Amino acid sequence: MRTFNIVKPNETIRPSLTYKIEDLTKPKGALGRLEELALQIGLIQQTLTPSLKHPINLIFAADHGIIDEGVSKTPKEVTAQVVYNFLNGGAGICFLCKQHGFELKVVDAGVDYDFPPHIGLIDQKIRKGSRNFLHEAALTEEEVNEAIRRGADSVSECQDTGCNVISFGEMGAGNTAVSSIWMNLLTGIPLTACVGAGSGLDHKGIHHKYEILEQALSKYKEAPTPSNILRYFGGYEMDMAVGAMLRAAELGLVILIDGFIMTNCALMASKLYPEVIDYCIFGHCGDESGHQKLLHYMGVKPLLSLGLRLGEGSGAVCAYPIVDSAVRMINEMDTFHKAQITKYI
Amino acid sequence: MRTFNIVKPNETIRPSLTYKIEDLTKPKGALGRLEELALQIGLIQQTLTPSLKHPINLIFAADHGIIDEGVSKTPKEVTAQVVYNFLNGGAGICFLCKQHGFELKVVDAGVDYDFPPHIGLIDQKIRKGSRNFLHEAALTEEEVNEAIRRGADSVSECQDTGCNVISFGEMGAGNTAVSSIWMNLLTGIPLTACVGAGSGLDHKGIHHKYEILEQALSKYKEAPTPSNILRYFGGYEMDMAVGAMLRAAELGLVILIDGFIMTNCALMASKLYPEVIDYCIFGHCGDESGHQKLLHYMGVKPLLSLGLRLGEGSGAVCAYPIVDSAVRMINEMDTFHKAQITKYI
Repeated sequence: MRTFNIVKPNETIRPSLTYKIEDLTKPKGALGRLEELALQIGLIQQTLTPSLKHPINLIFAADHGIIDEGVSKTPKEVTAQVVYNFLNGGAGICFLCKQHGFELKVVDAGVDYDFPPHIGLIDQKIRKGSRNFLHEAALTEEEVNEAIRRGADSVSECQDTGCNVISFGEMGAGNTAVSSIWMNLLTGIPLTACVGAGSGLDHKGIHHKYEILEQALSKYKEAPTPSNILRYFGGYEMDMAVGAMLRAAELGLVILIDGFIMTNCALMASKLYPEVIDYCIFGHCGDESGHQKLLHYMGVKPLLSLGLRLGEGSGAVCAYPIVDSAVRMINEMDTFHKAQITKYI
Repeated sequence: MRTFNIVKPNETIRPSLTYKIEDLTKPKGALGRLEELALQIGLIQQTLTPSLKHPINLIFAADHGIIDEGVSKTPKEVTAQVVYNFLNGGAGICFLCKQHGFELKVVDAGVDYDFPPHIGLIDQKIRKGSRNFLHEAALTEEEVNEAIRRGADSVSECQDTGCNVISFGEMGAGNTAVSSIWMNLLTGIPLTACVGAGSGLDHKGIHHKYEILEQALSKYKEAPTPSNILRYFGGYEMDMAVGAMLRAAELGLVILIDGFIMTNCALMASKLYPEVIDYCIFGHCGDESGHQKLLHYMGVKPLLSLGLRLGEGSGAVCAYPIVDSAVRMINEMDTFHKAQITKYI
């Protein structure tokens, strides 16, 4: 697998950042999470005047063999239909990207559909859908390596256009099932707490999904290492997102993490390179069972909790104005000294 | 006191709004709070295509006699200094207003300072600070009526400029103490749960604040009616905000509610006219002790929880992009029918 040179942001600048934030005209700490974000972004960018440039929401789309077992309410054909909807501008993520000035890029990582060429989709298709991990490994080792590499390359291309803040989204019927397996194997949290409703399963549907995943896990005899999980229980869009996150951290970009599925990709990335977390901002905690437990396990706090469960990067892009506020705060607010206000911290 | 004609939004349009929201290309309910907001704003505006126009953040500023008892870490002179900072563009609320396209209007409701004329401040000063309610009523009845009227008039002026969404903020050293009293008297929640750190009191400071308020309450022998509380424990900026909220609801504006102090003003407004709540969107739940309990008592859910405790309208303006997202969602997303996607709700 491609290796990444990800370093923890240099801490030397921290006292200067803290001093600057505390000298802004407000009671100490009164801008809460905005102050924490300004510090984090200042550390990532190693500057007292951070900036956010050319934000991009990069969506990876793929299908999953496990969907044949009835683990999702979303029929498989919807993956390709929603990809068209991204490109036509009618999907949920489209108005959010337009609202917040994001470029939307959509990558076909492995959708089980033959898209016509030249429809605005970035063709990185590895295979038309992964294999069914109830019976066999979902990906081959070569496919994992290829997915990591292609994910990384797609981020390099984003940076080449001037982007320094990137969010990742996904579309793939069945990928909450994949995420539940990753979460269970990587954290040790019982499977039952990792399985949820996905796009809208009822109680019976959730139970069936649990039983299928339980069965797949009981057959699985390999060591639950990140690389084995990326292969046996992988998904093309999710493995690609892991490579993309690692490359984004390597390049020192600010990374916005969406919901349950992308949080699992960030977890996987952090098991390979723990330093990646220093570059991540978690946008949203949804109602998907297990997401809150997962964020708690990772020791991170999401910015929003709005009951979103759309994927596509929606929870990350929706949270972007708060990140932008943090950067504006440290650049635009007056200091006590300049404003001649009695310091009352 | 001026009366207001506030009606509950007509429910006839609700089924059409619900149908439209559910036909958007996403799993049913997958945009969570955005869907609830779109419904609420559609009801307020009585349309399937709601819009947000010329948002204004209206800040009321005043001083409080109770501050002489040491109930705040913020020295009284800071109220006037921060008002200058609003006008100079260096305060926390300034960058947020600029970011989200809000006009910022600042009203001197009762600051204990002689501002020079023509500094961009709207002069509605009733008195240079309220009286100390440890010893006497903070306001007279005439002052309450005047504050309600002037608050209402300031909103009429906002509407005249084309504004249909308005947030309210405050600046007034000591006004979390006033808010704690209001909350206790209007909800019956024990005073100890209503008193918090304000702009940054330590444990000892909070205890002192509690003791002063307890003492004031033990001397108070009148019936705890809204109009008595507005008078005896009033504040010029808070009473004015109550009048402003009532007028905004009367005019059918979307009202954005900020933190602990403005939530108490919304509570007071709702005790006078319960229908006002249908027009309110609660922006932020801060860490101020009691705010969460108060929101729970009122049966409302804030959009954000970012640890802000600045006031000035910051928590409301910070939440605005989410409100804007809801309106864009219902106007810009494609329907299942139009996008030719298999409906998978």
